[in-house]
Amino acid sequence: MKIDKNILIMSRFPKRVISHFDETFNTFKIYEKVDKEKYLIDVSEKIDGIAVMGPTVVSADIINSLPKLKIIGNFGVGFDAIDIKKATDANVRVTNTPDVLNDEVADTAVALTLSVYRKIIDANQFLLNKLWLKSEFPLSRKFSGSKFGILGMGRIGKAIAQRIEAFNCDISYHSRNKKDLNYKYFPKLENLAEHVDTLCVITPGGHETKHLVNKNILKKLGENGVIINIARGSVIDQTALIEALKTGTISGAGLDVFEDEPNVPEDLMNLNNVVLLPHVGSATVETRYQMGKMVYDNIVAFFKNEKLLSPVN
Amino acid sequence: MKIDKNILIMSRFPKRVISHFDETFNTFKIYEKVDKEKYLIDVSEKIDGIAVMGPTVVSADIINSLPKLKIIGNFGVGFDAIDIKKATDANVRVTNTPDVLNDEVADTAVALTLSVYRKIIDANQFLLNKLWLKSEFPLSRKFSGSKFGILGMGRIGKAIAQRIEAFNCDISYHSRNKKDLNYKYFPKLENLAEHVDTLCVITPGGHETKHLVNKNILKKLGENGVIINIARGSVIDQTALIEALKTGTISGAGLDVFEDEPNVPEDLMNLNNVVLLPHVGSATVETRYQMGKMVYDNIVAFFKNEKLLSPVN
Repeated sequence: MKIDKNILIMSRFPKRVISHFDETFNTFKIYEKVDKEKYLIDVSEKIDGIAVMGPTVVSADIINSLPKLKIIGNFGVGFDAIDIKKATDANVRVTNTPDVLNDEVADTAVALTLSVYRKIIDANQFLLNKLWLKSEFPLSRKFSGSKFGILGMGRIGKAIAQRIEAFNCDISYHSRNKKDLNYKYFPKLENLAEHVDTLCVITPGGHETKHLVNKNILKKLGENGVIINIARGSVIDQTALIEALKTGTISGAGLDVFEDEPNVPEDLMNLNNVVLLPHVGSATVETRYQMGKMVYDNIVAFFKNEKLLSPVN
Repeated sequence: MKIDKNILIMSRFPKRVISHFDETFNTFKIYEKVDKEKYLIDVSEKIDGIAVMGPTVVSADIINSLPKLKIIGNFGVGFDAIDIKKATDANVRVTNTPDVLNDEVADTAVALTLSVYRKIIDANQFLLNKLWLKSEFPLSRKFSGSKFGILGMGRIGKAIAQRIEAFNCDISYHSRNKKDLNYKYFPKLENLAEHVDTLCVITPGGHETKHLVNKNILKKLGENGVIINIARGSVIDQTALIEALKTGTISGAGLDVFEDEPNVPEDLMNLNNVVLLPHVGSATVETRYQMGKMVYDNIVAFFKNEKLLSPVN
């Protein structure tokens, strides 16, 4: 299948996905270029569609500069790096990749949670440093049977709940609206934080949720509380979080996302009650391919005048 | 409650458990002594019962040297450090601590498995070494939906299966006898190994299971195969395992136990496709207390002529 449209590939997609684009479209690989600004000016008149992965930004300026642009295929569920309002005003469709990454992100949430409770990284380091020859690794903390709270009960939240239930945990959640689920709903986040041992953040990023988890929420979570963030760094007030971890206001944190990625404050790295990951929530070969394929499928559908698989606007 | 019996406490139990023993019995804390052999000779005529944690060995010689010994309360499910035959011949009862650690060991199994598949430790190191500032962490491998095999479908095996099912995995098992379970049973271990992506070992240790997982089984598990061991190091031929990991015969391993603990071969530590833990399967404050309390409860039951909670012989 060949479609005579010009696609600007803004990020380094998985190779198999790039091949799909190359086979179908005329591709313009700006991610490979050194002088990206110049390249964008050179090709701007031709571009019909964009394929992009976060954190690459698609600003109002970029949208303005591409007169023929009709669709932006975003890799990932969150599309906070794209100026959606501008896109909508310019009659540019935006798609994302929901569902195909639910399992993966949920697995990451469980891995982070168990790593924090059971001190997996410290225990491994203890063995590698041969300290086991001298003493036993200190006892850690039981996770099974604890109270687990989820902030944001969307598709990924449900996938997390499914897994955590199997650990005999008591699950509760907060989201804007109560869902038809057998988990306890808290209309107020602070009441959820007060009720649970673990607060797992999986609500979308963007302005509406910025610093939803603030100093007050961390205080309610309390000295035995653990926070897990696999959503967006912006949802948590990172400065307040570091302070809460330093002073024992909460017990620990497992973080896959940060406020200013890939920058992670030294203060956070130096803490011994955190597990930090470089935003690997969906980062497996299998899932990243499925996500890329969905970007491709959306753009193909658009140019074949078919229904989009996962429109955002 | 006071019981006028003399208990030899051979290992460093959790403090709360030691307090229970002190409040009830006359206690003899050999674990605190420098010259343990001399201490044992000094108190040998008095000892009515033993409280012990692996890996402390209770040999035939020790049993022989204690004429009044009637009960050995073992901390843990496995009792391979106790000479059971000798104990039975000498009319000494032995108890263990089943069930109270099922959840904990199952959690450890899941933590190890996810850590191997998702390269949690490497990803954390990548961030801490600030490599994220230069590039993305390499993609790892999806766990959810994979084929998970369990060697030994006892109480802990079932607790593992319960958790792994929630990851949408296909679960199968091998044990001496087929159980009344909705998981696929393989009468032969090699056929299970061939069928699965992950082989999780949770069968008892001891002579009967020594090197049950050998070179042939590892070959059947194959180049995409992952082995998880939270049982006993003796169940796997460790030399064959290291070779299989080095040559790519299998893909990776998550090990909480080793053949000669706390010694771990340098060769194993130097591999990048393993996650190694210092035998922390049940090592949380909550669970270790429950296990110790069960040792105490068994010894109390014995001297009150009540039914033992968990007799081994």
